[in-house]
Amino acid sequence: MTSVDRWLLPDGVEELLPAQAAQVEALRRQLLDLYKRWGYELVIPPMLEYTESLLVGLGSDIDLLTFRVTDQLTGRMMGLRADITPQAARIDAHSLGREGPVRLCYAGSVLHSKPKKPLASRSPIQLGAELYGDNSPASDLEIICLMLETLRVAGLDGITLDTGHVGIYRAVIKAAALNAEQEASYFDILQRKAKTELREFVAALDASDRVAEQLLALNELHGGKDVLAKGRQVFAAIPEAIEAIASLEQLTEALAQRIPDLQFYFDLAELRGYHYHTGVVFSALVREHGQALASGGRYDDIGEVFGRARPATGFSIDLKALLGLLSPVSEAAAIFAPYDPSLAQWQFVQSLRESGEKVICGLPGQDADAACDRIIRKEKEQWCVESLN
Amino acid sequence: MTSVDRWLLPDGVEELLPAQAAQVEALRRQLLDLYKRWGYELVIPPMLEYTESLLVGLGSDIDLLTFRVTDQLTGRMMGLRADITPQAARIDAHSLGREGPVRLCYAGSVLHSKPKKPLASRSPIQLGAELYGDNSPASDLEIICLMLETLRVAGLDGITLDTGHVGIYRAVIKAAALNAEQEASYFDILQRKAKTELREFVAALDASDRVAEQLLALNELHGGKDVLAKGRQVFAAIPEAIEAIASLEQLTEALAQRIPDLQFYFDLAELRGYHYHTGVVFSALVREHGQALASGGRYDDIGEVFGRARPATGFSIDLKALLGLLSPVSEAAAIFAPYDPSLAQWQFVQSLRESGEKVICGLPGQDADAACDRIIRKEKEQWCVESLN
Repeated sequence: MTSVDRWLLPDGVEELLPAQAAQVEALRRQLLDLYKRWGYELVIPPMLEYTESLLVGLGSDIDLLTFRVTDQLTGRMMGLRADITPQAARIDAHSLGREGPVRLCYAGSVLHSKPKKPLASRSPIQLGAELYGDNSPASDLEIICLMLETLRVAGLDGITLDTGHVGIYRAVIKAAALNAEQEASYFDILQRKAKTELREFVAALDASDRVAEQLLALNELHGGKDVLAKGRQVFAAIPEAIEAIASLEQLTEALAQRIPDLQFYFDLAELRGYHYHTGVVFSALVREHGQALASGGRYDDIGEVFGRARPATGFSIDLKALLGLLSPVSEAAAIFAPYDPSLAQWQFVQSLRESGEKVICGLPGQDADAACDRIIRKEKEQWCVESLN
Repeated sequence: MTSVDRWLLPDGVEELLPAQAAQVEALRRQLLDLYKRWGYELVIPPMLEYTESLLVGLGSDIDLLTFRVTDQLTGRMMGLRADITPQAARIDAHSLGREGPVRLCYAGSVLHSKPKKPLASRSPIQLGAELYGDNSPASDLEIICLMLETLRVAGLDGITLDTGHVGIYRAVIKAAALNAEQEASYFDILQRKAKTELREFVAALDASDRVAEQLLALNELHGGKDVLAKGRQVFAAIPEAIEAIASLEQLTEALAQRIPDLQFYFDLAELRGYHYHTGVVFSALVREHGQALASGGRYDDIGEVFGRARPATGFSIDLKALLGLLSPVSEAAAIFAPYDPSLAQWQFVQSLRESGEKVICGLPGQDADAACDRIIRKEKEQWCVESLN
């Protein structure tokens, strides 16, 4: 590698230069302040842990995304976090060990060994909030409202909430009594919404008409609110599915009341993070941007591997993915202090900085640059600030 | 690994729970705001890069500390940053490519495969500031003042500045015409200030009395200001050493003027980061705490490997190392909103949050906890906030 390309960054690994870094830092503060006002306590988990702590039965997705390194002190395998949620769950279950609801938030880098989606960053800046210890719909409602408030604070509008409930799929495959191999095929087909393939799959099963109808229907149940009514019809004989649909309906009705201009999209076969989630799942999109900007769901019992199962619901966002959608941050103009080694100028500069001004001290031979709109001058033994125009 | 020890963190890898995380977050903001007022622009370099970019001839110290992973996309070796300074230098030299002075600051996690010192963290949170493009003493003075201001903002006093200049050592070994093997032995002995070993080493050399005196003296030249006068005598015949001592004297005089209560300690054999530094080196200690809390130095020409050599000086600190020395952050008490699914309560809660209050929404069955000093009640169809005492 010669000096000309030593500066190359790996694909999907970005640096943020001053204008973007200022945007990210401003938004990071606004959001952590928002979470604080909602009673969410900040935690700062480490960048790496033993893989046993990071990969707590979350399925193969997160496993494949995790960079591994050997701990030179113990020879054990460590992972670079690909997600902060399992760390927050560990902190709730073990480190804090409190009874009752616990609200946590976090902000930090995560690393993915491969892009999660084509063109996705491999070094996102993940912010999120998690609510532990309560399994009522009230905590899902709170978390979704906070996720939507996150996007509002980021200046985004025209938001669509995409919701589903993994309990529907679970109930349908249980009712259909699919074996493990069949289940894996069905799961895969639903993920791709592959219609023809699904018809062939169902035809090959030795299933009753009702079961066949249910298996086919799940693939179609996405769209507006009528999806819920259709689901009630098709799955009338599966109480767990009806229950899941009812909780989804209740949740979205409460949301519509609180946020009247929110658009809804339902997908009863939504299986993102299926190995992880246990109830309602949700993500938020904006019209001009196809991909989900924030997502989350209920993931009860994740703390079990740390010795304490706790109900849990939460969401997270990637600040880098928001970057292109944010308005630029206008930086305050600076005062230029021409090079002068005197103590008197230094003291004047410091007093300006103490009062909140940005002051750039000129170095020998340096003139004021475009970032400065004022200059320090000495007039009749008095220091003063003058406009540069 | 059973569920009881799945929560174990690797040695030197810490998580910060709410009280400590709040301290770190508050200080991080105060410091980045301070750097902004001094004209330093925030950059956010990535957690990992190709090793060729991260390890830019900085010597073996940083190399040994760096975790390595293979890029699955290219098969090339990547490193997890063990220091942010080389990244900032790359950004200055290549990504920004501006002429004239450039001031950058950063805040982020770094990872060390081994603790740098016994009991040191392997996952520090590094904050720092770097000034590129000026090789005058004025920029060293600015950087040291900003480093000291950093500790003042963190609430620390009784600070001692430990300074040295790698030019002195360089000039002395050049004058002594040591070969590479001799130089390596001498370097090693100085690092350990091993007196007897040094006498044996010098005796074994075929050196003039003057050279022997110089080699022996360098090991002793640490302490108060008189060290500079002694250095001038011993190294009178080595102009580069005299020049380095003069620049150290000039710098510390300017500092003493600006910060009258600052204590000075000189170590003319200070070689921390020798392979990296090219001029003055400095670190700051507080009396009650033996270890350096912040350190830095001049490191001209680091940008050369990225195609553009630029003068550079800077410092960094580890926020985690400061933790035990910080005063606790007092969190604002919260208002408790007893569980109530009504839209009216939600709107009242949101109006309180918008006005800056922290409001915790009760979940079904939950009572106000110790974090709350007020409660929301409905009285005569009006929502109000009442004291909980």
